[in-house]
Amino acid sequence: MTSDEHERSAGEISALLWHALEGQGVTAAKGFSAAGVACGIKESGAEDLALVFSDRPCTAAGVFTTNQVKAAPVLLSQARVASGRAQAVLVSSGNANACTGEQGRLDAEETVALAARELGIDAGLVLVASTGYIGHRLPMDALRAGIPAARAALSPDGGSRAARAIMTTDTRAKELALEMELGGSTVRLGGMAKGAAMIRPSLATMICVITTDADIGARELDLALRWAVDRSFNCITIDGDMSTNDTVLALANGASGAQVLKEEDRRKFERALDFVTARLARAIVADGEGATKTIQVQVSGAPEYEQARHIAMAIANSPLVKTAIYGGDPNWGRVMAAAGAAGVEFDPRRADLSLAGIPMVGAGAPLPFDEARAGEALRQREIVIRLDLHGGPQSATVWTCDLTEEYIRVNAHYRT
Amino acid sequence: MTSDEHERSAGEISALLWHALEGQGVTAAKGFSAAGVACGIKESGAEDLALVFSDRPCTAAGVFTTNQVKAAPVLLSQARVASGRAQAVLVSSGNANACTGEQGRLDAEETVALAARELGIDAGLVLVASTGYIGHRLPMDALRAGIPAARAALSPDGGSRAARAIMTTDTRAKELALEMELGGSTVRLGGMAKGAAMIRPSLATMICVITTDADIGARELDLALRWAVDRSFNCITIDGDMSTNDTVLALANGASGAQVLKEEDRRKFERALDFVTARLARAIVADGEGATKTIQVQVSGAPEYEQARHIAMAIANSPLVKTAIYGGDPNWGRVMAAAGAAGVEFDPRRADLSLAGIPMVGAGAPLPFDEARAGEALRQREIVIRLDLHGGPQSATVWTCDLTEEYIRVNAHYRT
Repeated sequence: MTSDEHERSAGEISALLWHALEGQGVTAAKGFSAAGVACGIKESGAEDLALVFSDRPCTAAGVFTTNQVKAAPVLLSQARVASGRAQAVLVSSGNANACTGEQGRLDAEETVALAARELGIDAGLVLVASTGYIGHRLPMDALRAGIPAARAALSPDGGSRAARAIMTTDTRAKELALEMELGGSTVRLGGMAKGAAMIRPSLATMICVITTDADIGARELDLALRWAVDRSFNCITIDGDMSTNDTVLALANGASGAQVLKEEDRRKFERALDFVTARLARAIVADGEGATKTIQVQVSGAPEYEQARHIAMAIANSPLVKTAIYGGDPNWGRVMAAAGAAGVEFDPRRADLSLAGIPMVGAGAPLPFDEARAGEALRQREIVIRLDLHGGPQSATVWTCDLTEEYIRVNAHYRT
Repeated sequence: MTSDEHERSAGEISALLWHALEGQGVTAAKGFSAAGVACGIKESGAEDLALVFSDRPCTAAGVFTTNQVKAAPVLLSQARVASGRAQAVLVSSGNANACTGEQGRLDAEETVALAARELGIDAGLVLVASTGYIGHRLPMDALRAGIPAARAALSPDGGSRAARAIMTTDTRAKELALEMELGGSTVRLGGMAKGAAMIRPSLATMICVITTDADIGARELDLALRWAVDRSFNCITIDGDMSTNDTVLALANGASGAQVLKEEDRRKFERALDFVTARLARAIVADGEGATKTIQVQVSGAPEYEQARHIAMAIANSPLVKTAIYGGDPNWGRVMAAAGAAGVEFDPRRADLSLAGIPMVGAGAPLPFDEARAGEALRQREIVIRLDLHGGPQSATVWTCDLTEEYIRVNAHYRT
């Protein structure tokens, strides 16, 4: 199956299972409202505070960065979401509240307490995420004024404004929602995300909030979210750097009345969640810092899924591969070398490799190819690298973008 | 101890133990001759074939890339050096003979057989290394003519010409030799290396050849070489990519008559070998592709050496850290985030961090610093990043260079 066929078939399957809700995100599901306001964290005056609220308590799940250096809001939300309950998510952009010590913890707690008071709910039901500068104290005055303003702006149509307010270096807001039948009721599932482009000034971190009006248990939601994140956000890379603030949160308020209990319904819900996270993850890659092309790395023929993903990730993180794709250079030797350096054993004498649909290595040996045609193929905006190890049944796909002078420019010269 | 103090003290110790031989390399040691000739592998007409020869058989040791995709000359030399004996090393530059399948193996073997015949020695005593383009067949006509020419040009003064002939994208030849007293005799130890800059067109790989007239057993030489490589070449990184051709070879011919038997002499020999490999490794970093600065990453306070090195390597490989140093941006948050993402557990609340000598993090919290002074300090050509985890007795140092637009340019646009 070619990549296009794979895409088409995935599209057909999803068309049978649900339909998209154009221009909607976290407020598509019943009972959710949201807001995005400018409270003065960003010097530019752009929107920098998003609030997502459910009219009733939700089951909740979260997946967080595995970085040893975790931001204060990550530590706080991680502890709270363990209860499996939440009703609101506050996201501030422009300041990550990371590496801020004890003061950072106090500021995150005050933020959450303020939001809870404004919303009239228990502070234990408010989750928080932040993105932006590392190592600077949160401007609490801005938040003290901003939280009531966000509360006042809450609206069932506020999803898109919230999606804009969480942006840092993103050039486009990223949101998505869909509707499906589940257990005889109509269920909606939507989400918003911001990119991992990591430029201003330390880390613009990945944050994603997903809402649904399905009625699903906290444990089931947690399992579904972990699986979906593992196949989506954990399969993209911009520059190999992992942030202190990465956060994915899911809230299910049950307002649709559709109980996700039957195995069949649970499968469908999982697929839908997987679809939403995969789309949002790929939107992040397409909006990568300085990127001119997206790169899809497909590794097949590995004994284990993790091995396939590990090799795909090594190829996707290789600066030499990324610069070759940027330059339209059919430099397949760099792909083979990156694969070989991944720390996974395989027999290079069995490997087949194609770049942009053109076979370049067969059974480990170079194949003749038309350089002009290869140059043409590599001028496309989406490049597929396909490596078959012929050593097992497992495959994995990773998405990334090319590495350009523009990436260096924005990251080297931001503060100076 | 500051970095400068550390350097000075290392310099004083080494001054007591040996003295440098200016402008010398692989032919400093008695009984060795070398040559560097142009045989037509490189289209530019530059020197591309180096030969190093000892007038008597040597004990030999080698350390090779751990990449799963190994070039034909790596596989051949790895098998031969297992005998612990060698008398000659042939290095060709411009073509890596990697990903060339069965034909590549036959070509490497023919090359070695040709050299052995010319030199009048057993083919089992010839080692070979190649660097350059991946996936192109070795131009055997060039080598068939070049090997006799290199044989004819062998000279006890040929070390520097050999060092030039192994260059690919290097801008400077890298060689070094020293002399010391060992067991009552004068012993010389010298080496040459080429860089890991990896630009043309797939991989310009790291190759290093070390010669000595010490009389040392193959097993002792092997142990000493592995230790030295682990603390030198394995502690540098240009772009995190690992090549298919990395090769370090050491030959000891015993011509000085100095037997390395006593524990004290072995220690001294090991320190000298460590000094030579460390200097060559740092010369490679300083000559990194597009580099404007070298970066020394010192991580201390780890429970184990490997953990310290792993964190140091993660910092050194972070594109965000490398671009910040390039731009002179005191963006310490990127260093903390890269350290935290290394996959090694530590308590960020105990970490101290300084950039270019300026403390920026104390016990995990940001310290106030003078931005102007920091900007000034970051304009230096060598930047030290020092992270103390306060979690154990072990430390490690890794060297790298900054990441610049020039790196992207040369790697993206080489073939097009």
